[in-house]
Amino acid sequence: MQDEIEFATEAEDLLEEKIEHAYELIEKKDYSKLKELLEDMEPADIAMMLEEVPIENVPLIFRILPKELAADTFVEMDTDQQEVLIRAFSDEELERVMSDVFVDDTVDIIEEMPANVVRRILRSISPERRAKINDIMHYPEDSAGSIMTIEYVDLTESMTVAEAFTKIRETGLNKETIYTCYVIDRNRKLLGLVTVMTLLTSPPDAVIADIMDDNVIYTTTDSDKEDVSKLIEKYDLLAVPVVDREHRLVGIVTVDDAIDVIQEEAEEDFAKMAAITPMEKPYLKTSVFNIWKSRIPWLMLMMVSATFTGMIISGFENALQAEVVLTAFIPMLMDTGGNSGSQASVTIIRGLSLGEIEFGDILKVIWKESRVSILCGISLAVATFLKILLINRLLLHEHVSFMVAFVVCITMCFTIIIAKFIGCTLPLFAKKIGFDPAVMASPFITTIVDAVSLLIYFSVAKWLLGI
Amino acid sequence: MQDEIEFATEAEDLLEEKIEHAYELIEKKDYSKLKELLEDMEPADIAMMLEEVPIENVPLIFRILPKELAADTFVEMDTDQQEVLIRAFSDEELERVMSDVFVDDTVDIIEEMPANVVRRILRSISPERRAKINDIMHYPEDSAGSIMTIEYVDLTESMTVAEAFTKIRETGLNKETIYTCYVIDRNRKLLGLVTVMTLLTSPPDAVIADIMDDNVIYTTTDSDKEDVSKLIEKYDLLAVPVVDREHRLVGIVTVDDAIDVIQEEAEEDFAKMAAITPMEKPYLKTSVFNIWKSRIPWLMLMMVSATFTGMIISGFENALQAEVVLTAFIPMLMDTGGNSGSQASVTIIRGLSLGEIEFGDILKVIWKESRVSILCGISLAVATFLKILLINRLLLHEHVSFMVAFVVCITMCFTIIIAKFIGCTLPLFAKKIGFDPAVMASPFITTIVDAVSLLIYFSVAKWLLGI
Repeated sequence: MQDEIEFATEAEDLLEEKIEHAYELIEKKDYSKLKELLEDMEPADIAMMLEEVPIENVPLIFRILPKELAADTFVEMDTDQQEVLIRAFSDEELERVMSDVFVDDTVDIIEEMPANVVRRILRSISPERRAKINDIMHYPEDSAGSIMTIEYVDLTESMTVAEAFTKIRETGLNKETIYTCYVIDRNRKLLGLVTVMTLLTSPPDAVIADIMDDNVIYTTTDSDKEDVSKLIEKYDLLAVPVVDREHRLVGIVTVDDAIDVIQEEAEEDFAKMAAITPMEKPYLKTSVFNIWKSRIPWLMLMMVSATFTGMIISGFENALQAEVVLTAFIPMLMDTGGNSGSQASVTIIRGLSLGEIEFGDILKVIWKESRVSILCGISLAVATFLKILLINRLLLHEHVSFMVAFVVCITMCFTIIIAKFIGCTLPLFAKKIGFDPAVMASPFITTIVDAVSLLIYFSVAKWLLGI
Repeated sequence: MQDEIEFATEAEDLLEEKIEHAYELIEKKDYSKLKELLEDMEPADIAMMLEEVPIENVPLIFRILPKELAADTFVEMDTDQQEVLIRAFSDEELERVMSDVFVDDTVDIIEEMPANVVRRILRSISPERRAKINDIMHYPEDSAGSIMTIEYVDLTESMTVAEAFTKIRETGLNKETIYTCYVIDRNRKLLGLVTVMTLLTSPPDAVIADIMDDNVIYTTTDSDKEDVSKLIEKYDLLAVPVVDREHRLVGIVTVDDAIDVIQEEAEEDFAKMAAITPMEKPYLKTSVFNIWKSRIPWLMLMMVSATFTGMIISGFENALQAEVVLTAFIPMLMDTGGNSGSQASVTIIRGLSLGEIEFGDILKVIWKESRVSILCGISLAVATFLKILLINRLLLHEHVSFMVAFVVCITMCFTIIIAKFIGCTLPLFAKKIGFDPAVMASPFITTIVDAVSLLIYFSVAKWLLGI
């Protein structure tokens, strides 16, 4: 077994060795050997390695990297390090690095930097690229336009396959993907696409118009970036072309960006369901104050909204004083209610996020949840009755009368049914009125379910126990 | 605004129109027009359309699809429909479809089918492919081997660029990706890779050995599929080669499969955190009984574990009878504790899933959470005091003495600190002992935090109120 684990992590060990070796070479100031080593490493790994290097050494190491590798590594570094580096770079160095960074990555970097650093970056870029960056930065946040790249290969209908290959060879190295080429007309309107696979299997004198696929899956600059990544996922694409309102090709979104969007959206949903405001940086790199800021509003909200549950309990103070044993079951009823509710709400919220469920399915959802909740309610009521009988009465010798057990079980059953109903409908209505369904999951549903379960509990108790 | 929304969904409208049109043609039995229409549609969309078609018409529609499109559409359909189709197909039809399905997709289909259908599928496949399918099915579940495909282009070191292109042209159409080709030696050991981009920019007589990249990021058949998708994500790859213990190339995992793995893993974490056993099918397609089965064990577990909280309350019955107002704050304390705990646990669990946090970071995590929790605890205690003063006393005229308010606030502060400590350490220890951290999130942490917060509450109350 030990052997197998080692085998599986062989590649990882190799990477660690390389990084260790790099540290040694940096210490020894053996830059020619270091250069050789780094040239064999992936940009993401070099960036990881540089995180542990004293910041004053980083610009020096950067200078020995070949131009393209330097740019790729720069993109992979975290924002703080990028900022330090830009400040340490001379104008020429900054220009050298930025000229090889793709436009979409440049936009990402600019968005995170303080104004004076942004000015330096923009100054280091050619006016032409600057205009393009400006365009992308004007698209709404979270739109396809804001995450697209403008580095793609475009062809015209009248080109031959041989001409297409010449164009790819000439410009390809600076494009984010060359494997799908887009065919446009004189006004840059998107007409079709042709893959390198098709080009390779066509005779050199074939005309693009005859071999292109005019059935293109495309998106528009103002589409939601989540929808764009869903397209890529659904159709197994390497890239999606982005067109403007006049159907002119303005950029592409590539599959690696789509993966980032998918991860980001999942993390946002996780955070919201745990009642946290989503954070941009990884946990270990976020400051204590920022973590506090992302959590405290929700805790405050829950605390204040708990006034309702407090009021309900206060209102039944006399009943509780007459039958103190009732208090002992409050945590169980509240927890079970909360859990039942979040089981339904998380399922529906993720279904909405993944596009599996829509508001139009609300009746189907309610019908399904009703049956599930009745099944859950009855089975849990029976189990609770047995548990009170066996554990509370026989094992712990507590004085729980049959009537109290009955009250608890009836409440349990109704709480589950109502919790699941609230849990499945609230996110759908939230979505309908343009509110984020994921935010509904934790604090709101918990508060409502808590209040409802207590109301049921005390009403049933008053009625059956006559208190 | 209305106009913008319409614009953004233009492509979707077009798709809906196409699907409507297809339904009309099916009704009119105009199969030649239908064929034309379907040939212009994406496999995923045809599969979606077929879901709403009466099942007896589906085999008929399948017959008019071109061979490759039929196979691609078949792969996109859901399991139930696939099964019906296979049963409806003649042996020849089944052979025709299956011969164009990639090996990894065939394995996926086989894994979902009942034994008699599996036998028919295997009979329809050539003995050679059958042996390969058998190999893949023997890799452990969730391993790279179990999700890899064997359709890739392999080259040898001595080939020239021109020969490489010939090989790609000859075999490429049946490969899942041609854009990265893998270089192997006589024993199939992986030596390097060469991209089509490199091939295109190299002279035709260049030798592969001279232009290949021998620094290959690879994985092994028994690696976790999650780790493989992390590689693809980290290095922005289109595919990762998979080698066996002798470093022989046996398959590749492509980026589209990596996206599926990422989504699956996120959905599993969501389900576990909401105390649901992860389900395989989308919600609307899962039976009521299966949903019940995925939820009820967790509800039962919570119900039984609530015995502890019940015992604690019973133990302090006298204190509660002396100061009934204390009961009113139980829900608030429990909810805040539960929320604080899950804020910490969900953050850590996702950090673990994404590989941002490891067990070795435990001291860093505890140090960070301690500071966050003290900040949260103090701010919430102060806010609670103000809330009791303003809302409970002034607004609602409840009889909450300063001493009781003080008890509640101190409990609040300590509950948050302890809840966050438990929330951040438990998932890390779970991971360490090989237990799934996500399962810890909901039921376990809630139960422990509930019990601890009640113990603190009553102890502080006894001490300060002398009851």
